[in-house]
Amino acid sequence: MKIALLGCGVVGGGVLEICDSRDDLELKYVLVRREKKELGDRAVFDITTILNDKEIDTVVEVMGGLSPAFEYVSAAMKAGKNVVTANKHLVAHHYCELLELAKENGVAFRCTPAVGGGIPWLYNLERVMRLDKVLSFSGIMNGTTNFILDAMHTEGSDFAEVLALAQELGYAEADPSADIDGLDIQRKCIITANVAFGACLLEEEVPVFGIRHILACDIAAAVSMNRICKMLAFGKLNNGSPAVYVEPSFVRCGELEAAVSTNRNVISFDTELTGKESFYGQGAGRYPTAYNAVADCLDIKNGVKSFYTDIMNPVKPDNSAEKHPYYVRFKGSDEWLDSVSIEKCGEGVVTADVSVAQMHAWAAKAKEADPALFFAGVI
Amino acid sequence: MKIALLGCGVVGGGVLEICDSRDDLELKYVLVRREKKELGDRAVFDITTILNDKEIDTVVEVMGGLSPAFEYVSAAMKAGKNVVTANKHLVAHHYCELLELAKENGVAFRCTPAVGGGIPWLYNLERVMRLDKVLSFSGIMNGTTNFILDAMHTEGSDFAEVLALAQELGYAEADPSADIDGLDIQRKCIITANVAFGACLLEEEVPVFGIRHILACDIAAAVSMNRICKMLAFGKLNNGSPAVYVEPSFVRCGELEAAVSTNRNVISFDTELTGKESFYGQGAGRYPTAYNAVADCLDIKNGVKSFYTDIMNPVKPDNSAEKHPYYVRFKGSDEWLDSVSIEKCGEGVVTADVSVAQMHAWAAKAKEADPALFFAGVI
Repeated sequence: MKIALLGCGVVGGGVLEICDSRDDLELKYVLVRREKKELGDRAVFDITTILNDKEIDTVVEVMGGLSPAFEYVSAAMKAGKNVVTANKHLVAHHYCELLELAKENGVAFRCTPAVGGGIPWLYNLERVMRLDKVLSFSGIMNGTTNFILDAMHTEGSDFAEVLALAQELGYAEADPSADIDGLDIQRKCIITANVAFGACLLEEEVPVFGIRHILACDIAAAVSMNRICKMLAFGKLNNGSPAVYVEPSFVRCGELEAAVSTNRNVISFDTELTGKESFYGQGAGRYPTAYNAVADCLDIKNGVKSFYTDIMNPVKPDNSAEKHPYYVRFKGSDEWLDSVSIEKCGEGVVTADVSVAQMHAWAAKAKEADPALFFAGVI
Repeated sequence: MKIALLGCGVVGGGVLEICDSRDDLELKYVLVRREKKELGDRAVFDITTILNDKEIDTVVEVMGGLSPAFEYVSAAMKAGKNVVTANKHLVAHHYCELLELAKENGVAFRCTPAVGGGIPWLYNLERVMRLDKVLSFSGIMNGTTNFILDAMHTEGSDFAEVLALAQELGYAEADPSADIDGLDIQRKCIITANVAFGACLLEEEVPVFGIRHILACDIAAAVSMNRICKMLAFGKLNNGSPAVYVEPSFVRCGELEAAVSTNRNVISFDTELTGKESFYGQGAGRYPTAYNAVADCLDIKNGVKSFYTDIMNPVKPDNSAEKHPYYVRFKGSDEWLDSVSIEKCGEGVVTADVSVAQMHAWAAKAKEADPALFFAGVI
C-alpha cells in the first residue's frame, strides 16, 4: 500500500515512523508547507503531485483545521484515493459531504484516530453495529479536561493553577479554549452520534457546557455528594430521536468513569444484546493516535468495509426527554432556578430532575447575569 | 453463510436467535443429543450429516467440554469447514493442535467468545498485534469470582453466603470449582498469553491460586490497605520469556479494576506504542457470548484473517522475575514465611517482594499444613 501523508506534526511524525518500520506500507509523499530536511525527496509542497500519482492509494490527513484539509481530502477522494483522517474538526463539520464523496467515488473513508486517539472506539462501534443496536453512549473523550479535573480532585488545586501545569506538561494548548469549553468533545460526540445513530448532526445543534469557570468549591460540592466531577459526552436514543449533549457531570465514586485518572479517556456504549462495553486508553498523543491512523490503513488494505456506516438521517438532537438533577452555582437570584432547587450544596444548589434541554437553555441566558456560573449533571 | 451449530444450551440458543434474525446467516443444522421440538428439521443427531453437507461453511461449537467437542471440531476442519468456538477449555487444552489443523486445512479458527464472553478481547488483541508489540496483559476474566468478591466487600458477607446467592442468581454453577479455584480464568489466561506472546502453554505450567478459602478477615485486610481484593490473570514478557499466572490481588482503590462491580469483567493490555488499553463488559451470559460467536462468523464471512496469530513457540512460563509483596494468612509457623514477612496485617502478614514462582510453590506445599491458607498479591 502506497500512502501520502498530509501534514507532519506530532501525529504525522508518528505515522511516518510506524510506516517506515514496516514492509507492507510505503509512505511515498509528505505534504508540508516548508522544507523538512529529514523528509528528503518525500517532501512535496503541492497537493497535485499526490493527486496525480496513480500509485498512491491512500491519503492520511493529519494537518488539522477545516481548510485546506477539506479541499485536499475532497480532491483526494475525487482522484480515487482512500482517505484516513485524525482531524475531528473536519469530520464533525463536513461529515455528510465526506461520506457522500467516499460513496460516490467508491473509496474508503476512515477516521478512527479522530475519536479517542489510541482507543479503538469507532472500530469497535462499527463492529457492534453489524449485529446489535446501540441504545446509548457516553464517556470521557478529552484528556486535557480530565487531567485538570483529576488534579483539582487529588491535589485540591485551583483551575488556573492546574491549567498552567497542564500547559507546561504539553497536555493543554496555549489557547485551551477548544478543550476547556468542550468543543473538542462536542466534535467527538457528534462523530460518535452520527455513526451510532445513523445521524448527521450539526455542531450548533449539540449543546455543550465546559469547565472554564469551575472552582475548587464545585469540586468540594461533588465530593460532599460522594462523587467526582468529570467532563462527559452523552448520546441516547429516545423513541428514535437522539439526545446528544456535553456537560460536566458528578459521577458516583466506584463507577468506571470515576477511576479514569490523569489524561486518560474511557468511552462506553450500551446495546440491546451485549449491554455496556467500555474502552479505556490514551485519548491523545503521538504514537497512540498515529497507531490508530495506520491501523485504519491496514483495515483498508485488508478490505474491511470502507466506512463505519452509510446511513445519514437528517435528524435533530432532542434533549427534552433526558432528565436528571443538576448542581448549579449561580450568583444572584433567578425565579426558574429557585423553582427547581431542592437543596443548598456548598456555594450552589441541587435541583430536582430537570431536562438537559432546559438546563442548557437556561444557562445560555443566565450567563449574561453571571458569566462565571457553573453547572454539572448529578448522575 | 450457512452455519451448523454444535450444542444448543444457553449460548447456543442465543446464537440460534441472532442468526434467525438475519438474512445473511443461515443456521441450517443444530447438533443435539435429544429431540428438541422447536428446532424442527434443523435438529441433527449425528455429526456426519454436518460434515458431509458441502453447503455448510462454518461450524459454531458451543457444547463445552473436551470430548467429543475436540473430535467434532477437528473433523469439521478436516472437512474444510471454518470453526468458531466459545469453548475455552477446548481451546486452552488443544490450542496447538487446533491451530495446526486450521492451517493445514486452510480454514478459519476463531474463539472470541471463549475469553471475556461479550467483550471483544481477542478481536482487539489481534488488531493491536498487527502494528504494535504487547508487553503485558492483566484483568478480571471471571464474573462469578468478581461477583463473590464484590459482594463480600460491599455487603460484608461471608464467602459461603455469597456463593449460595451467586448460585441462586445463576452466576455460579452447582459445582463452582472451575470458577472459585481459578481454572476458568487459567484457561482464558492461557489463550490470551498464547495469542499475545505467540506461545503454546500447557495448563499445568500456569500457576493458579483461587478464592475457595477467602474469609471476611482477608477482605478486611485488603480494606485496611486501602485496597480491594480482585481475582486477576497476568501475563508479561520479561526478556522474551512470559510470566503467566492467576492469583487474588489486592488492587488500589481508584484503579480501573477496583471499579468493576458485580459479575462484570475488564481486561487490559499494555503495548509499546499505544500504552494501556482496557476492555470492559459482560464476561458471560447468553446474548453477550452468542454475540461474539456470531461476530466471529461475520468476520470470517468478511475475509478477516482466520486466526489471531499463527505463531506457536513452545516456551514455558517463567514467574521467577515477577516480584511483589503478598498478603498471606497461614495457621502455624513457617520458617520461609517468617523470613519474608515484614508486618502483621489482620490475621495474616504482609511480605517483602517475593517472586510469583516462589509464592505459588510455597503455597502448594504449605497447604498440607494449613489447607485453608490464603494469599493475595499486593499490587
